Parts: sequence; C-alpha cells; structure tokens
Amino acid sequence: MRKQNREGIRNQKVTRSADFIPEWKENISDHQSFRSIFKWGAKDEFKNPSQGFFSVIKQELGLSDDDFQTPSKLGETIVENSCKTTMNPEEITLFENIVGKENCFIDTYDRLKYSTGKAMEDIFDLREEKIENISDIVLHPKNREEIQKILELCHTKKIPLHVYGGGSSVTLGLSCPRGGVTLVMNTHMNKMIKFSEINRTITVEAGMMGPVYEELLNNAPVKLDANNQYTGGHFPQSFEYSTVGGWVVTLGSGQASSYYGDVYDLIVSQEYITPKGSFKTHDFPATATGPKINDIMKGSEGCFGVLVAVTMKIFKFQPKNSKQFAFMFPKFENAVNAVRQISQSDSGMPSIFRVSDPEETDIALKMYNLDKNIIGKVMGLKGLKPGSRCLLMGQTDGDKAFSNNLLKQIKKICSKNYGSNLSGYPMRKWYKGRFSDPYMRDALNDFGVLIDTLEASVTWENLEKLYHGVRNHIKQHPNTICMTHASHFYDQGTNLYFIFITKMGNIDEFRTFQRSIIEKIEENGGSLSHHHGVGRMMAPLMEKHLGKTQMDVLKALKKHFDPHNIMNPGGLGL
Amino acid sequence: MRKQNREGIRNQKVTRSADFIPEWKENISDHQSFRSIFKWGAKDEFKNPSQGFFSVIKQELGLSDDDFQTPSKLGETIVENSCKTTMNPEEITLFENIVGKENCFIDTYDRLKYSTGKAMEDIFDLREEKIENISDIVLHPKNREEIQKILELCHTKKIPLHVYGGGSSVTLGLSCPRGGVTLVMNTHMNKMIKFSEINRTITVEAGMMGPVYEELLNNAPVKLDANNQYTGGHFPQSFEYSTVGGWVVTLGSGQASSYYGDVYDLIVSQEYITPKGSFKTHDFPATATGPKINDIMKGSEGCFGVLVAVTMKIFKFQPKNSKQFAFMFPKFENAVNAVRQISQSDSGMPSIFRVSDPEETDIALKMYNLDKNIIGKVMGLKGLKPGSRCLLMGQTDGDKAFSNNLLKQIKKICSKNYGSNLSGYPMRKWYKGRFSDPYMRDALNDFGVLIDTLEASVTWENLEKLYHGVRNHIKQHPNTICMTHASHFYDQGTNLYFIFITKMGNIDEFRTFQRSIIEKIEENGGSLSHHHGVGRMMAPLMEKHLGKTQMDVLKALKKHFDPHNIMNPGGLGL
Repeated sequence: MRKQNREGIRNQKVTRSADFIPEWKENISDHQSFRSIFKWGAKDEFKNPSQGFFSVIKQELGLSDDDFQTPSKLGETIVENSCKTTMNPEEITLFENIVGKENCFIDTYDRLKYSTGKAMEDIFDLREEKIENISDIVLHPKNREEIQKILELCHTKKIPLHVYGGGSSVTLGLSCPRGGVTLVMNTHMNKMIKFSEINRTITVEAGMMGPVYEELLNNAPVKLDANNQYTGGHFPQSFEYSTVGGWVVTLGSGQASSYYGDVYDLIVSQEYITPKGSFKTHDFPATATGPKINDIMKGSEGCFGVLVAVTMKIFKFQPKNSKQFAFMFPKFENAVNAVRQISQSDSGMPSIFRVSDPEETDIALKMYNLDKNIIGKVMGLKGLKPGSRCLLMGQTDGDKAFSNNLLKQIKKICSKNYGSNLSGYPMRKWYKGRFSDPYMRDALNDFGVLIDTLEASVTWENLEKLYHGVRNHIKQHPNTICMTHASHFYDQGTNLYFIFITKMGNIDEFRTFQRSIIEKIEENGGSLSHHHGVGRMMAPLMEKHLGKTQMDVLKALKKHFDPHNIMNPGGLGL
Repeated sequence: MRKQNREGIRNQKVTRSADFIPEWKENISDHQSFRSIFKWGAKDEFKNPSQGFFSVIKQELGLSDDDFQTPSKLGETIVENSCKTTMNPEEITLFENIVGKENCFIDTYDRLKYSTGKAMEDIFDLREEKIENISDIVLHPKNREEIQKILELCHTKKIPLHVYGGGSSVTLGLSCPRGGVTLVMNTHMNKMIKFSEINRTITVEAGMMGPVYEELLNNAPVKLDANNQYTGGHFPQSFEYSTVGGWVVTLGSGQASSYYGDVYDLIVSQEYITPKGSFKTHDFPATATGPKINDIMKGSEGCFGVLVAVTMKIFKFQPKNSKQFAFMFPKFENAVNAVRQISQSDSGMPSIFRVSDPEETDIALKMYNLDKNIIGKVMGLKGLKPGSRCLLMGQTDGDKAFSNNLLKQIKKICSKNYGSNLSGYPMRKWYKGRFSDPYMRDALNDFGVLIDTLEASVTWENLEKLYHGVRNHIKQHPNTICMTHASHFYDQGTNLYFIFITKMGNIDEFRTFQRSIIEKIEENGGSLSHHHGVGRMMAPLMEKHLGKTQMDVLKALKKHFDPHNIMNPGGLGL
C-alpha cells in the first residue's frame, strides 16, 4: 500500500511551490500522552528540517508535498491506566517500605515511560500506542542502601531488575520483557561524591545527568573550590538526556572522543551492587594485578549489577584554545587518507573530528546552507563536485601550543591529500546544532519518514569493505537516503556511522530492514556496535559476533554475578 | 652471625684504600651450573658497580673492603641430574609424540632452569643449590596445534601446565610447586604472523623476544616492505630477555610508557588456547559490545589459558625527534609538583620520564659520576644539597614539532617549580645503561649484598603517604639503602619504584623483610604491583587487596576457563 502510494506520487511528479512548509508540530504534548514519552528532549523544544534538507528528502524518497499534508500516528492519546501490574500487592508493599510510597509507581504511564528508550522501534511502538514489555513497578531509590535492599529483595524473590539512567538507549536497552522492577537513577542518585583536583577525577552517583556533570566541572572554581575550570570531555549526541552511569554501562563515546577518549578510557573506578555483593574497584592509574574488575564491569549494561557511583577522569576546560577547521576533499578516498594520516601523525589528536561521505556531505551542505556562500564558490573554483566531494570537520583542544601545532599538522596533511580549506565556519555551524538534530526525527516521523542510525567500529584495513558493503545494502532499498560518517578516531581505525532515512508505514518491515543492516555490518567485519551498546537489538547477534567460546566467558560472569538471572535479563544476549 | 659480623666491622671502621676493587666475577659460567641459570642476561656480559656506587654501598651498609674479599655461594656447581621427574613414562611418551623427542626434556637442569625466574628469592635458592618447585617435563612446542594437544592432554590427565616466556619474572611467576609441564615459548613460537602498516599493528607469536620484535619493526622498510620504520614503544628493563607474550600476560610497562602506554594499552587483540576452547579476540580499535574478552585475558598470567599470539600497536620510529632533558630540584616535593603538572599539562606526555627521590638522586650522581663535572658546579651554585635535591630526567618523542613543543612546556613547568636545567647529558648517561643494571645485582650478590625492587601504582593524592610509609619501613631496617623513583606517569597518578639494598645471609630473613614491604605498600594505599605482575609473590595478598567480592570474580573466571585447576595453579592467588 505504502509503496504503491509513493511510487504513484513519484510517477506523477506532483510538486507544489518550493516554499511549501509542512505544518511541523510544535505544540507541547499532553503530560500523560504517548507523545510525551517518545518526543526527544525538552518538551518545548523543536527542530524542523531546513527547507534544503526537506527538499532532499522529498527528492530522494520520491515524495511530494502531498505526503507532508497530514501528519499521522502522533501518539497524542493519553496513556490510560489500563495495563495492570502483575506484581502482587505484598511485593509492592515491600518495595514501598524500602523507597517510600512517593518513590514507587505502578501506573501504566510511568511503567511505560521508564521501559522505553529512543530506538526507532520504541518510538514506532508508542506512536502505535502499543504497551508492551513494560516493568511492573518503577522505583526511584534515594541511596545505595535502598538499592542494596531492592536488589536483595529481587534476588530472593527472583524478580527482574532493570536500571534506567536518562532513557536515551537506541538499542532497546530499557525494555522489560519479563516485567519486574525498573530503578530510575536520575531522580535522586545524582549527587557528587568527591572531587579531586590533584588526581584530576570526579566521583559522582550514576544518575547524574550530563549537563549537570559538565556544568559542575566548568564551574569548579566556584562550585568545588578548585583552582581551574574542568570538563568531562564527554559529549554524546544524547548528552543533555543521558546520565554518567548510562555512559559507563553502555560504553558510550562523545563527539570529542578522539582527544578525550571514549567513556571506556575515561572510567577510573566504579562502585557496584550485585547479587554477589558490593564493591568499589581501585582508582589506581594502572596496575599489574591480573585482569581488572574495573574492565569486566565496563559495558555490563546492568546485567551483572547496579552501578551506583563512578570516578571519571576530568580535563582542564580551556575553550579559548579550541581551533575549528574544515576541509573539502575531491573524493572519499582522499578524505579517508587524510584522517588516517592525521590519526597516525604522532602529533596528538583533535577532539571533534568527523569526515562525511559524498551523500552526507551534499546533504550537510544543504542543511547548513553552505553551498551558497563563499564556501560554495571555493568548491566551484576547485571543481569539488556533488556526489564525490567529502567534508572533513573538527576541532583541536588541549594546551594552546599543542592545539595550535596540531592544527598546523592537520592543515599540512589535508593539503597534501588535495583538501581545500573551508575555514572553521562549517564546523561552527555544525557545533551549534550538535545536540539538537534528534528533534528533527520527531518532525519527520510525524509524516511517516523514518530516520535511524547504526554504527560500527572498524580497522583502517577494513574500512572500505565495511563502507561499501553496508552502504550498498542500504541503497538497494528503494528511495532511501544513506548518509555515512566517521567520527571517532584511533591509530588503528575509526568508526562508521550510517544514517538511513526512508518512508515506511510498517514496523515489521522496518525491523526486518534494520536487522538486515546489522547483519551486513557483522558480515563485513564491523563491530556490532561502536558506542550505542548492545541492548536487546544486538543481543541476538552477540554469540555469532564474539564466537561461542568468548560468549561463554560473558555467560560465566553472568552466572557468577546473577545466578537467578534477574539483572536486566536478556541484556547483552546473556 | 651475619649481623654481628657486619656490626663488628662497622664499629672497627675498617677501610682500605679508596682504590680497592673487589675481584668481581667475570668468567663465563659452566654450561650446566646453577650460576648459568640465575646469572642475568648474556653469559659473557657483566656490569660491576662503579667505584662511586661501591663506596656508597660500603658506607650505607656498614661494610668494609674486607666484606668484599671472598665471594661466596657462587652457584658454580653443575646441576646433577639427581632430581628424577615424577611423571610416569607413558605420559612422557605421549608428550614426546606431540612435540618430538628433541623438544622434550626431563633432566633436572632443564626442569630447574625453566621453573625459575629472576626474583631475589629464585637467585638465592639457586645460589644455595636448592632444587625445589620444578616442573616434571619441559616442552618446546612448535605451533599452536601442538599447544592445543598438550593442553588437552594436561586437561584430561589433570597435569599442571605452566608457560615460560623469557624467564624474567621477578614475582615467582615461573615456579611449579605442583610439578607438571613447562611450555617454553621462545624456542619455536617466536614468528611474525602479520604486519599491517595501515592499521599500525603487528601480530606475532607470543614467544618472540623483545629485541627481535623491536629490530623487525625498526627495519620494517627492508624486512616488512613498509614505507616507514616502526617501534613497539615497549622497553622494560628486562627488554632483552623477555617475550612479547610475557609482557602481555603480566601487564608490563616499559621505560617509555608515559608516551607509548603500558602493555595494557598496547594490546589490540590476543589469541588463546584454553581448556574451554580457543579464540582470538576482535581487533577493533574500540567497541561497545559489552565487557571485552580482550581485557579479561590481559594480565591472566597463564591461569586461564596459553597466549599463542598477540596483535600490538606500533608507532613510527623517529629517533631524530627524541629530545633529552634533565632537571635538578631542591626538594622531592618540588620535583613531584613538576612531574604532576607536566602530566596534566594537556601538551602530550614525554616517553621516558623519571624522578628520583633524594637518596636515589645522590646515588645516581655518584653512579654516573655526575657530581664532579659542570653539573656538579651548577648544583653547587644553585645550592642544591645532597640529601634533599631530586633528579628528574626524560625524553620527548613523537612528531618533531610535538616533541619540541612538549620539551618547551616541560622546561617552563620545571623552571616554575625551581628546577635547574642540567641539559640532556644525565639522561643520555642513564640511557646507555638502561638495560644493563640487572647485571650489577649478580656482582653484589656474590658478596652477600642483596638488591631487590618492589613497586606500586598510586594516585597523586596518595603519593606522599605511600612514599613515606614504605620508605620509612624499609629504612627502619639497619644498614639498608632505599632508592625510590617514579617512572610511569598518568594524568591521575604515577608509580613508585623502591630499590632496597642490604646484606643478608639468610633467605628466610630476606623473605620476611620483603613480604613486610609488600604489606606496607598495600596498607599505605599502593597497588600490589604496577608492572611486575602478581606471580606467587603477591598471590597471597590478592584477596586482601581486591576484597573478597572482586577476588571471587577472578575465581569464577578461573573456574570457567580451567575447571581442573591445571593452568599455572596458584598463580594470581586463584
């Protein structure tokens, strides 16, 4: 039906005025509506596609203005309290006694809200007003003693226990197919525990939100009596709506990771409550005392225990040393050579660093209106053609002389690889919107246009194979945009981030398509995930990906920590 | 008896001519002697204490030239084939069938040799001509298939299996208290498997020796058809007599680790054969697919399986960019402030970087004859007094501009902390002897002077407590030198390396002293080991150090991988 419709429109070449602007929804959702759950970010913030981007979408997806007349599946219905908890009243009372009635919720809305992340599937289900895979009770614990008691109760009674940080999981990491308890960490478990300027570390409770964490560090002289301002150096796109603990247990990476490190590198020590006991790992900067428990817990996604606190590396905050840069390359190959040579230049690494493939480059130029001004002229003069040219952007940070020197090396290497200097302007344009792009998804979803992303890490050697293998597969799907970039860099390789946009009315069709892309990533030698985590989306492929012998090691750990299989059951494929 | 003797000499203040030089032993040991096993390094290389160092030793240990007249316990006896293997002939035949008779040894000498490391205790035992805790059979496997078969046989018959890399363990990591098999990896399992210039990695069999590895990389254009020369960046003091696999399973750190990283950071992927199956971990530069098996195996010291191959990061070899530096500070406190500020300067890190405490500084000045030339004059002019002044030395590496800029920042920070620039000369002096100091231990041991080292990692916050707590304890022992330095640096802290020299004739007395130091390290908040590993020396303290809950995680892994407890039983305290 959908396909017919779309094809039909294409054939008719129905177009209206170039000035047509859909009635993007910009009203605040009702408090208890499905929409209030799935809408990205702040309830009163919106971001709609620019007219440039909108016209690309119509063109590439074979749509016309007609397709953007009537939004549908807006999820504006109020979530009725229709789905009763299956937990018995005695158990509910036991939980109430631990956290207090005011921190204990069994209504459908709360249970649905805290069992849902931001995967396209989550959103699709909520737009369909489906209420599935939700927990039986939502608890907002106030301290580690309460978490300890909750965990003991769950262990004794074999009740599944899930942890909710900021709710930004895009891998179905929050769903509760076996019901049970959801612990919400950001309500009360969000305090600073210790700041050590001399160690350059901060210890916080797991539920502290990204902006609170960063503001505390930026204002360290006032708020923490420090000599300097600091930064956590971690800025994932979900920064504003994710928690420090969530970053840690899902192994996130921020937009400036090439300099500051992935969360994996930023973790100094962790404190857990598990069915097998509680512990805090050592905070030594290095040790040779066998395999590190600190490592074993990184990325454990709530399957071994509840992360209650974490000590993180921090860095001097010196934004005046930041230098932005952007270059345009004639071909993807030139751009990839440049970023590899920069990553291997032994000059240190830029913080933000991202290279777009031709399709993403051309769309980005339109999104940010870069093709019309002086930059458009430079590209014209240099013969940098649409469909081939590639945009590289980034920023250097650190000490002033270090940052300046690195920028000099970057310019040298880019020039050697036929890159044209576009100044720092495109980077500054991108920087402004770096956390707000997810808002656009809601706007497009309202008209049935789906956007999703999948990502993988890859060695330099295998980059080309992964890029073409996955991109070709996505592009085989008719009327589909596939934008690809690499945005996290290492001496040994990078990541590839695939954004695909298409129109689909059917979640099963979408899921089939999405799963086929994940399989293509795996087949073409990419990691199942670079920084999105595993969740229940990648879980079924984990054993194939790691091999049985390695998967058995994770299973052995799971069995040790959680013999009753209550900790986020099904997570990590365990 | 010993103590009386020493005290007596001290009281008499017997001194001979300042020109007295002991008859340091410089003859090549008999091939099958105890000495041939414990002697450090090449059989025809020797290094004797300089006269400056020798006079310090006499003075601090309360000894006179008389104590250096007659060496004793030289271990020159031939190891008789007196200690029969307890393995039955049928089993021996089974092993012979796997590796061939020519790679299978049951004579006492070989079994003793390959069950012994370079801990002071190992050496002491060999000088006493003790034959204890040795394996029953020594095998030199030729390939992974043979290792697989050996491991299966050991697993089926519950025969302990130990792995010998280069034999440089200083933590009793090689002894075989339950007998069984020792696998020697450096004989045949020493080949390169793959070199990837684009990934900046090299994959080698675990038994490749340090110098072979480094020479291969340094000569990559000729030997590997590469565009550039490379370095592994890993130079532990044992570099010449250790294997790549040994570095990995014991979590070593090299002298240039502050820039290149500890071995922990250098490992990209590993290939293991375990009783639960064989596997190779992924070589992705980063992943978010749950806890990493690659991490779980790092530092496993042969307790989970046999490491057969490893993929390591490599770096461009550009020695012409190396810049040496040295500074003298009026007090330890100033020097520590400087190294911390440099480590946290956001300018990158020097490669070699070491700061000595006052006692080590004064001895180093004498060892390298630095107190007499122009450097002595500088110190005199600046009022840098013995017993207080502290030497900082190092080297910057990487790209030329990066290295130069870092040196500039280092000079700035040192000057701000009252450091006097001594030029790169002391660093170059140290550099020449950086692998040869262990030879001196043999020379001094011949006269009953024991030298041993213990080390720990520590946060900046806790450095002072650890330093004083451990040093005061060591110095409470009469007539004992305690030299301390920090030589591996991180944003969050460093390590402390304690070298203690004293005269003892009794191994039990020594062991008691040494164990008391380890306990002091633990009590004062140091890691049980920074880069020496655990072995059987730290094993008894592991549970106290990690806490029972964390130790139980390692035990669960051990049980999973090795249900019959045959893999290096007792290692890691498991």
